[in-house]
Amino acid sequence: MAVYTKVSSEEIERFLTRFDVGTLVSAKGIAEGVENSNYLLETTKGQYILTLYEKRVDPADLPFFIALLDHLAAHGCRVPPMIADRDGEKIQQLCGRSACLIIFLPGVSVSHPTEAQARSTGRALGDMHRALEDFEPERRNILDHAGWRSLAEQCGPEQLDDIAPGLSKTIAEELNHLDAHWPEELPRSAIHADLFPDNVLMLGDQVTGLIDFYFSCTDIRAYDLAVTHTAWSFSEDGVDFNRAVSDALIDGYESAFALSDAEREALPLLARGAALRFLLTRAYDWINTPADALVTRKDPQAFLHRLQYYQTHPEIFST
Amino acid sequence: MAVYTKVSSEEIERFLTRFDVGTLVSAKGIAEGVENSNYLLETTKGQYILTLYEKRVDPADLPFFIALLDHLAAHGCRVPPMIADRDGEKIQQLCGRSACLIIFLPGVSVSHPTEAQARSTGRALGDMHRALEDFEPERRNILDHAGWRSLAEQCGPEQLDDIAPGLSKTIAEELNHLDAHWPEELPRSAIHADLFPDNVLMLGDQVTGLIDFYFSCTDIRAYDLAVTHTAWSFSEDGVDFNRAVSDALIDGYESAFALSDAEREALPLLARGAALRFLLTRAYDWINTPADALVTRKDPQAFLHRLQYYQTHPEIFST
Repeated sequence: MAVYTKVSSEEIERFLTRFDVGTLVSAKGIAEGVENSNYLLETTKGQYILTLYEKRVDPADLPFFIALLDHLAAHGCRVPPMIADRDGEKIQQLCGRSACLIIFLPGVSVSHPTEAQARSTGRALGDMHRALEDFEPERRNILDHAGWRSLAEQCGPEQLDDIAPGLSKTIAEELNHLDAHWPEELPRSAIHADLFPDNVLMLGDQVTGLIDFYFSCTDIRAYDLAVTHTAWSFSEDGVDFNRAVSDALIDGYESAFALSDAEREALPLLARGAALRFLLTRAYDWINTPADALVTRKDPQAFLHRLQYYQTHPEIFST
Repeated sequence: MAVYTKVSSEEIERFLTRFDVGTLVSAKGIAEGVENSNYLLETTKGQYILTLYEKRVDPADLPFFIALLDHLAAHGCRVPPMIADRDGEKIQQLCGRSACLIIFLPGVSVSHPTEAQARSTGRALGDMHRALEDFEPERRNILDHAGWRSLAEQCGPEQLDDIAPGLSKTIAEELNHLDAHWPEELPRSAIHADLFPDNVLMLGDQVTGLIDFYFSCTDIRAYDLAVTHTAWSFSEDGVDFNRAVSDALIDGYESAFALSDAEREALPLLARGAALRFLLTRAYDWINTPADALVTRKDPQAFLHRLQYYQTHPEIFST
C-alpha cells in the first residue's frame, strides 16, 4: 500500500514513447493494491495506471494474468487490461522491474457495501465466471486448501495462541473438518480469489471495474463466491453479519450464473475455508510483522469471528 | 510520502456535497508532499486534491497558507489554491483532521532539471516574490538562521560525527561564520522556503505549478533563491555542481525580479546557510529515524557536499 519504486517523470516519459498513448501531463504515485508500485498517469490521450511488479508478484505469472484480463475484456467484463506497445508487447521492463501500462477505470471502492452494491458485485462475479467457462490457461492457487495446514504450521501453535487463546486448537480442528469434507469434485475454473470491496470499483450501485487480479488462479469456482461472501457480508472487524448483503450477493451471482445443487450445498463449507484462508494469512503476517512497523497489521481475529459465525450458522446459505 | 489517514469513498462523497464540484468518479490515495494524507479526486466536474493535515502541519498556520495561495493566484502565479465550500469556508474537518479541497494542477516534477527548466523555475520564483511585495501576513520561519544552532545541539556532536567524521566541527565553525556575517538587513518577504524540484510542476520547459507551501514563512527574500539554488544546481547526492543550471536559475529569477547589489553579494553566504539548513534537518531526521524504518532516510551528506562546495566556490554567484 505504498510506492516502493520511485520512477522519475523523465523515465515515465521515455517509457510512454513505446506506446501510442500521447504525452505525459501528470504522474502521481498511488497507494493501493497488493505490494506493487502504482502510478496514476494522465496523458494528452487519457488516464492510465503504470504498475511495477515488486517481490510479491512473480513475473512468470504475468502471462496468465494478461491472458485472463484480455479474455474477460473480450467477453464484456469490466476489468483493466494491460496495453500493448507498438511491438505488441504487454510486459515491459522499467527500473529493473517488470512493468505494465494498464487501462484506467473510473469508480471508487466502497467501505460499507449496501444491499444493491452487493447484488451488483455478485452479478459481476457471476458474469466473470460465465466468461471464464472457456478460458483454458491454469495457475495453481498457492493459498489453496492443500496449503492451509502448512501455513498453520509455519505460524506455530504458541504464536497463534498469543493472537487469541485457543486459536491453534480452533484452527487444527477446522483443518481436520475441512480435510474430511472439502468438495474437491466441484467444478473448477479461473477465479479472482480476492474480491474484497477494495477490489471492486463502483459508481453508485453499478460495478465499473473488478481489479487487482494478482491472486487469481485455478480453483473450485464456487470457492470464489465464498471468498467474496466472507469479504462482503460482515463488518470489517467480522463481528456483525449482514444477512441482507449476504442474500443480495448470492442472488446477484445466481442472476448471472446459476449454482448447481452441489455447489449450493457446499457453500457453508467453502465459506469456512475462505474465512480460514484469510485468518491464516493474516495470522502469518501478524506474527511476522513487528508491532511497531509502519505497515498496518490487519487483525486476524476479524476472520476468526467470521469462521465462528460460519461454523454455527450454515443456514444462511439455504434458499 | 504515504497515506496516513484512510478516508472511505463514502466519507469523501459526503465531504464533496459541501462544495459545488460535482460528484465523485474516482479517488486514489497519492504518495507525495510533506507528511499529509493526499487523495487525487476526479469528479463529474474536474480533478481535485483532498489534503488531510497530519501532525507536521499546525492547523493554526492554515489561514496564512490559504491567504498566501489566494494572493499568488490573484496575481497570476500558478499555484493550487484551496476551494471554498458553499459557506465560503476553506478549512474543513474530516476524519478528525483539518482538511482542504485544492485545485489540481497538471504537470510533473523533474528529477534531472535542464538549463531551460531551471530558467523557468527561477522566473516563476521571481514572479512569486514580485507578487508578494504587497502581501502582509507573516509567519515565523521555525527553521530560520536563529534556530540552526539549537538544531545542531539537538543532534549532538557524537551523533553528527557518526554521520561523517568531523561533521560536528564543520557545523560549529559554519554556525560561527554565519552568525558573524548573516545579512539580517536584507529585504524580507513571504517565501516558499522549500522549492525543490519535487515542488515544481512542469510540462516540458514550462512551469505549470509551484506546490507544497507548507514551509512557507517570512524570511530574507534572497534566501528563498539560495534555497532553490541548493535544491536545483547539484546532483541529488550533492557531488556534482551544474554551473549552467545555476546560472540559468539566477538569470531566470532576475528576468522577473532584479536582485539588489547587496542581495547579489550575500548570495554565497545565503547559499551556505541554505545548505546548512537542509544538512541539519536531514541529520536530525537521520539520527532520529531507525535504520530499518520503512521511511527512507535522506542522506545528510548530500548537503554537506553542497555546503563544502559553496564554502570554496563563492565565485559561482558573480555576474
